[in-house]
Amino acid sequence: MTTPSNRKQTRCAIMAVVGLAMLQSLVPATAQDAVRRSPSQIIAEAPAEHWRALDPENTLYIDMETGRVVVELTQDLAPVHVAQVKTLTRAGYYDGLNFYRVIDGFVAQGGDIHAADAQKAKPLPAGAQQTLEAEFEAPLRPGLGYVPVPGPDGYATRTGFLNGFPAGIDPQYGKVWLTHCYGAFAFGREEGADTASTEFYITLGVQRYLDRNLTVFGAVRQGMPLLQALPRGDEGPGMISDPEKRMAFTFRVAADLPPEERTPLEVMDTNSGSFKALVQARRNRPEPFFKYRPDHADICAIPIPVRPVPLGDGEETL
Amino acid sequence: MTTPSNRKQTRCAIMAVVGLAMLQSLVPATAQDAVRRSPSQIIAEAPAEHWRALDPENTLYIDMETGRVVVELTQDLAPVHVAQVKTLTRAGYYDGLNFYRVIDGFVAQGGDIHAADAQKAKPLPAGAQQTLEAEFEAPLRPGLGYVPVPGPDGYATRTGFLNGFPAGIDPQYGKVWLTHCYGAFAFGREEGADTASTEFYITLGVQRYLDRNLTVFGAVRQGMPLLQALPRGDEGPGMISDPEKRMAFTFRVAADLPPEERTPLEVMDTNSGSFKALVQARRNRPEPFFKYRPDHADICAIPIPVRPVPLGDGEETL
Repeated sequence: MTTPSNRKQTRCAIMAVVGLAMLQSLVPATAQDAVRRSPSQIIAEAPAEHWRALDPENTLYIDMETGRVVVELTQDLAPVHVAQVKTLTRAGYYDGLNFYRVIDGFVAQGGDIHAADAQKAKPLPAGAQQTLEAEFEAPLRPGLGYVPVPGPDGYATRTGFLNGFPAGIDPQYGKVWLTHCYGAFAFGREEGADTASTEFYITLGVQRYLDRNLTVFGAVRQGMPLLQALPRGDEGPGMISDPEKRMAFTFRVAADLPPEERTPLEVMDTNSGSFKALVQARRNRPEPFFKYRPDHADICAIPIPVRPVPLGDGEETL
Repeated sequence: MTTPSNRKQTRCAIMAVVGLAMLQSLVPATAQDAVRRSPSQIIAEAPAEHWRALDPENTLYIDMETGRVVVELTQDLAPVHVAQVKTLTRAGYYDGLNFYRVIDGFVAQGGDIHAADAQKAKPLPAGAQQTLEAEFEAPLRPGLGYVPVPGPDGYATRTGFLNGFPAGIDPQYGKVWLTHCYGAFAFGREEGADTASTEFYITLGVQRYLDRNLTVFGAVRQGMPLLQALPRGDEGPGMISDPEKRMAFTFRVAADLPPEERTPLEVMDTNSGSFKALVQARRNRPEPFFKYRPDHADICAIPIPVRPVPLGDGEETL
């Protein structure tokens, strides 16, 4: 087997010494450990305290006939949107709606295709707002710690990870926002900024030009292949013309399901030492397979590791 | 319908004037036309001479039971790899082989899963080389014109489009290479640089960290949804354990098929004025939907427009 990214765990002592000598001028001395370990080694060796279980109260399940998409919501930046999607979910609003707009490499969009048509729109449940104020970005308030990712970025002054979510940061104006990396969960809107309501989309590829133009408030932690397998739109701006081809779903807040119906996942804590080592290893892959090391990793090129919650006896839950 | 990217063609005169005044300080005066027109308008209005038909001699078809993937090869940078894949294709080497390694968001890899095992490997046809010299990058020779994309890039000193393909450029050392944007076509290899042979991969997401580590020499022009729908690997480094689930294919050079069996496509000429306008429009989307304009577009955030070859009477061929 010939691979684009050889993942053999073998270490070659000579390469390690030579490689380390070559790389010491490129990476900080504190990152030497990361220089030696590959991303897969760092993930495999991360201690239990470097992982955190998803909070069932901030986890959405999008259940389809093909399987489940798990979305983690963040409370840090967009509380109005988080409250709205949970209110809608708990009222059963999304159940029976579908993905009606899918554009390859761009987004899968779902909800009520008639949402903007007062005559045909599905009524909103009690407690839901008709339109939401924009939460494109939030103040970079004290205590909202993030792990910076070094290097240039064309879309933001700085980038980093905000408690498990990729973010752009503008230190001068004190703003922070989630970036449109792969699997970002966000609400669509009409032309006005404060017009989001119920419709959502999930990015099928990196789409940073949408940053600060829409409210991102979650990330897919499992199930992207199910979204990539959806039929693509065949008319207009990516619309699926045949209603039979629009994949239907139900929405659930994980906390509302009995434990045996949940999908217990852990993500690596982005504030942990393992994650900081992972960022360094992604910037300069230590495996001998790599002949060129850019000393750089884009914010969207550092996926957050996800795994099933381990059981006490070593078995996994999935 | 609420959209993440409103594609209405309407122009608002007030917005255009205000927007232009705001943006003139951000974009060169020569790009004022691009400031006014959206990407979809630029593509729709591009004159015939700003498009070029794919050359059948440099077009590969990967035919599967679900449909056809169209790959355009470039002769500019990696002549050894181009010759090898065409020799293999014309000898029928790939026919009946399959995609055996698929990792979501990363790559779909195909060829002979036993290629590295001398006992089990499918024999190479006459004229094919057992291993290829690396063509990770090429000299930036006179006449190899490229259209630069402005702005910072963490992986390359400069980026631009090289006759239809996204590229990284190092002017100091006079090197150019194709970048791992969405749908890049490349050969895998073993640990040594000069070990590529027959196995290929196609990126399912942006993977710039592979740049200059493998030889990219083509791009998918149609059919990415078919690759995104492939089953993902379930063991080891993305391997599909069940041979029944590995999607089989045949490879053809378009020129070897009769015209009625070809898929005639055009791509926008990246040296054309329309494409240069498109780059500017992607950096600062002019539609009123957009509230924040980054004055930036990553090299991998500017997809090359593709369309069926138009027929004389206005009908399309697809």
